[in-house]
Amino acid sequence: MAPPRILICGKIVWADEDVKQLLGPIAEVIYFDSTTRADFLEAFKPNGKYYDVVAIFRDNTSANKIGFFDKEIVEGFSPSVKWIAHNGAGYDQIDALACKAKGITLSNTPGAVDDASATTALYLLISTVRQYAISERSLREGKFKPPGLSAKSHDLTGRTLAILGLGGIGMRLAELAHAFPMRIIYHSRNKVANAPEWCEYFANVDDLLAEADVLSVHVPLRAETVGLVGETMIRKLKKGSIIINTARGKVIDEDAMIRALEDGHLASVGLDVYPNEPEVNPRLLDFPNITLLPHMGTETQDTQRKMEVRALINLKDFLTVGKGKDVVIEMK
Amino acid sequence: MAPPRILICGKIVWADEDVKQLLGPIAEVIYFDSTTRADFLEAFKPNGKYYDVVAIFRDNTSANKIGFFDKEIVEGFSPSVKWIAHNGAGYDQIDALACKAKGITLSNTPGAVDDASATTALYLLISTVRQYAISERSLREGKFKPPGLSAKSHDLTGRTLAILGLGGIGMRLAELAHAFPMRIIYHSRNKVANAPEWCEYFANVDDLLAEADVLSVHVPLRAETVGLVGETMIRKLKKGSIIINTARGKVIDEDAMIRALEDGHLASVGLDVYPNEPEVNPRLLDFPNITLLPHMGTETQDTQRKMEVRALINLKDFLTVGKGKDVVIEMK
Repeated sequence: MAPPRILICGKIVWADEDVKQLLGPIAEVIYFDSTTRADFLEAFKPNGKYYDVVAIFRDNTSANKIGFFDKEIVEGFSPSVKWIAHNGAGYDQIDALACKAKGITLSNTPGAVDDASATTALYLLISTVRQYAISERSLREGKFKPPGLSAKSHDLTGRTLAILGLGGIGMRLAELAHAFPMRIIYHSRNKVANAPEWCEYFANVDDLLAEADVLSVHVPLRAETVGLVGETMIRKLKKGSIIINTARGKVIDEDAMIRALEDGHLASVGLDVYPNEPEVNPRLLDFPNITLLPHMGTETQDTQRKMEVRALINLKDFLTVGKGKDVVIEMK
Repeated sequence: MAPPRILICGKIVWADEDVKQLLGPIAEVIYFDSTTRADFLEAFKPNGKYYDVVAIFRDNTSANKIGFFDKEIVEGFSPSVKWIAHNGAGYDQIDALACKAKGITLSNTPGAVDDASATTALYLLISTVRQYAISERSLREGKFKPPGLSAKSHDLTGRTLAILGLGGIGMRLAELAHAFPMRIIYHSRNKVANAPEWCEYFANVDDLLAEADVLSVHVPLRAETVGLVGETMIRKLKKGSIIINTARGKVIDEDAMIRALEDGHLASVGLDVYPNEPEVNPRLLDFPNITLLPHMGTETQDTQRKMEVRALINLKDFLTVGKGKDVVIEMK
């Protein structure tokens, strides 16, 4: 019997050897070479080159060629496709419900991203509270230290960090910020059972916002979280607060955030993500005192390898025991 | 009897109320208004306006008007001057031995600066290991994410941080980096008795350098530490290492460091201090992948107030019990 065929849809950068080790003995691994969406869909039709593929490794880089795994793509897969192992924590580029309807299981790579993403959030936290982005640019413009920055700058120690969404990344940030210590408070849909005692749960999000010096956003992008951090939530923060976003750009209402920066309600924001990446709203560039990173959350070779390996293990588990770990919540 | 006179030589920015509370009842506080060094020295001569001053609060901002407290200044003080409370941890702008010779005690503000300075070092650590300075500039230049950065970028977790000089700031950085955790190793003149178990002492500095992924410098500037981190030490680091400096610029041999950046021996450096501040060697600006802050170590209102209060308490203790805390090592 021919081994099951696995399609690598995107790029494996750091785990080439792991592909051979993990899947080599049990599968035929083929690498995606479609250059257009039509070409890709055609290949899943009877006699197409991907027709008998049983599982797919998917990376966001594939979107450059064929776009998101939206309803059209998912419905176009041949009936043999039973698993999509997405290489990433956020899977907003994949229509999870369309997968479910078609009997395809979708997995992601939680855990693997926590450390690197939370480190990015910690960096943005230090940079915004201490006004380092404007300081670095001032030095490179030959002006050394801008005057009056200490009046706008605080120690992290003792200030209150509010975490919106205490999943893996939020919890990891809590641990890192606890080293100062900051006071750590959080809101999630439910109290997190294994959260440490120093991590205070707020059932009411308004109460959380009223206490925060810094709000760090860690909710996934879903239909119900688009614009979640909008005018209402932002205005419930204290004047002079800071927002950090390392989740997804669309979770924040960007216009409401910019208004709050303009009128001084927000002292600063630290952003790693934007609603239409790689586009960045040019109005953001007008604020000298905010910190803007180009989606660097998991941009390390260590973490990218961890993610790739985790996605490959999900495929291996599917092939060998019929079920991988890390199945996304929509499947349950 | 007239109350003893205290001279504020520099600026008190955040602790104005504390001056009144701490010194108001026990001293006459006068504020320095000299505009030149000659004017300042003249005022300490018999009948000069500072002649009967018994103690001085000194801030680095005074150097803009009268220069450092070098031998000439210290020897020019009237015999009544018995204490200089410096507002800062580093007191390299004061000739401590000249103070001692003249019977003047010098105090600084250790402890008060630890948290803010170590936070700056942590920021530089994240920025350099993750390549965030170049990323931020790329975004603001309209290019979003530079290609290929993950190949040059690592997670902090599990990497080795070598601390050169485990005083208050070094120890605080160790605590913050331990949260990841990084492996923490250090070299000091002596093993630090109260250092935690996870903080490994290296008696031999060469052994320390051979293990380091990142070297963070935390030694004070003294005659014997000028250029301490020079060609020999830098070349004992592994290829691809990173150096962080939040201590004093002159502790590193800048030319040797630049050569090591040019030939790729050093992957990056994160600097908050420079040999001739506010001048920055223009050759440093040619390296896109290094992080340069304009001496922001203690630039927060919380820490600056803590430092000012600490210096004022040293003066109060001198006036009330004859001896302040925080006496610098040269006095002992």
